[in-house]
Amino acid sequence: MHAQRTPFQPKDPAFAARVRASFARQKAMDLIGARLTVVEPGYTEITLPYRPELTQQRAYVHGGILGMIADSACGYAAYSLMPATSSLVTVEYKINILAPAKGDLVARGEIFPADGTHVASMQQTLMMLADTPDVPDSPE
Amino acid sequence: MHAQRTPFQPKDPAFAARVRASFARQKAMDLIGARLTVVEPGYTEITLPYRPELTQQRAYVHGGILGMIADSACGYAAYSLMPATSSLVTVEYKINILAPAKGDLVARGEIFPADGTHVASMQQTLMMLADTPDVPDSPE
Amino acid sequence: MHAQRTPFQPKDPAFAARVRASFARQKAMDLIGARLTVVEPGYTEITLPYRPELTQQRAYVHGGILGMIADSACGYAAYSLMPATSSLVTVEYKINILAPAKGDLVARGEIFPADGTHVASMQQTLMMLADTPDVPDSPE
Amino acid sequence: MHAQRTPFQPKDPAFAARVRASFARQKAMDLIGARLTVVEPGYTEITLPYRPELTQQRAYVHGGILGMIADSACGYAAYSLMPATSSLVTVEYKINILAPAKGDLVARGEIFPADGTHVASMQQTLMMLADTPDVPDSPE
Repeated sequence: MHAQRTPFQPKDPAFAARVRASFARQKAMDLIGARLTVVEPGYTEITLPYRPELTQQRAYVHGGILGMIADSACGYAAYSLMPATSSLVTVEYKINILAPAKGDLVARGEIFPADGTHVASMQQTLMMLADTPDVPDSPE
Repeated sequence: MHAQRTPFQPKDPAFAARVRASFARQKAMDLIGARLTVVEPGYTEITLPYRPELTQQRAYVHGGILGMIADSACGYAAYSLMPATSSLVTVEYKINILAPAKGDLVARGEIFPADGTHVASMQQTLMMLADTPDVPDSPE
Repeated sequence: MHAQRTPFQPKDPAFAARVRASFARQKAMDLIGARLTVVEPGYTEITLPYRPELTQQRAYVHGGILGMIADSACGYAAYSLMPATSSLVTVEYKINILAPAKGDLVARGEIFPADGTHVASMQQTLMMLADTPDVPDSPE
Repeated sequence: MHAQRTPFQPKDPAFAARVRASFARQKAMDLIGARLTVVEPGYTEITLPYRPELTQQRAYVHGGILGMIADSACGYAAYSLMPATSSLVTVEYKINILAPAKGDLVARGEIFPADGTHVASMQQTLMMLADTPDVPDSPE
């Protein structure tokens, strides 16, 4: 047995069964072969075995399918902490794809406790300009 | 016959066949039943008939599947304008879900021509605070 | 006089004065020299004259300042349609920077009416892989 | 003295001076009163003392200013690991605002080493639907 990954106390003692029942209603998870393998308060894991049916044109797992498992993993991490009578919807998500996905995948959803006051989180894409001075262009 | 939806001239005269061949290699599109129904220079449409297999826990189309068809539609709109010898990858995407998806869907990918210099585009989520004065809180 | 840019009817007939008063309380807009130049139902423009004080290390307007004016412009476009008694907060925003910002700027915030049911909007960053076949890598 | 916060070895031994010189050219940081207080390989901190000049209509620090310091902190964390001859640009960023910003702020930019293969990162906004069953709506 392992220590719980987050410090949260769920409001609903039956949170795990509630999350698993909701996941079981997600027919789209069944379509892609995703399984909910861990449910803890504020933390979940979804496992997706690689299958050729999941790929884009270069045989990597489709970026949208990465989005599917990440969206559900994050959503259920949050849902595990919500009251038994609630439901939830995704308003928006953003995903940065860092490497080609070529094998079995695990999506982890985790709610971070506020450490002090956490004011904002950023995701960003940068482009390195090789051999380019980091100064203003000379006036033409 | 309709007028072309964008003013772009593709670099590759065989762009449509190249885009369709790439889409045909996306096994994930086949898995969900998506079809590439329009390919023009800088513009595509992907049609996704509703099926229960695509749904999340409340019987709406899963947000990740919305991401899949939007990602591919936008990507192929861009790819239609790229050279014949190129490939492309999605670095990141962000999707705002505005309404539950309950029926057949069409994802449109469109490249916007620069009108003057288009410097930046934003997507944003706002929360209205009903019956809350739009002024600083009174000091306690 | 021009036609209104959106088809919306504001709930609050005094929306323009309310938006302008809120903008006037944004000291950060004053700091950067931004002015609210258009307020219509569901549409605003914020004008930002170029000044060296606004720049990043290469003398372009800082990406965060693009975010500031876009955030306020979009927010006030939405706020113009909200009830007189409400306030609003930005939950999140995402900005794609398409070109270096070197001169005076205008940020437009616009609320799009639903045309049919608009289910989702995506912003995406793609990377073209020049001279790379758009097919799976050969197995090693 | 503290242990370095990341395991990275910079390619450029003079990375810290290079990052500090670039930051010093960001006049926008000076305008808002931000200071670069930590520079390590793959890690930076920018400190922003609270000032009324930085606020939006409700006297919180403007969301765009949160974006400014987060954008620069993340960018310089990446830039610290880049070659001496390079420059960089922000292609896009997304920020989720979790709490009102009412006091002095520290923005931390950190590059995460790949732990195994890190395939994708997501940021998401969820809406809890209180007292709403997490099941399909009954057919009307």
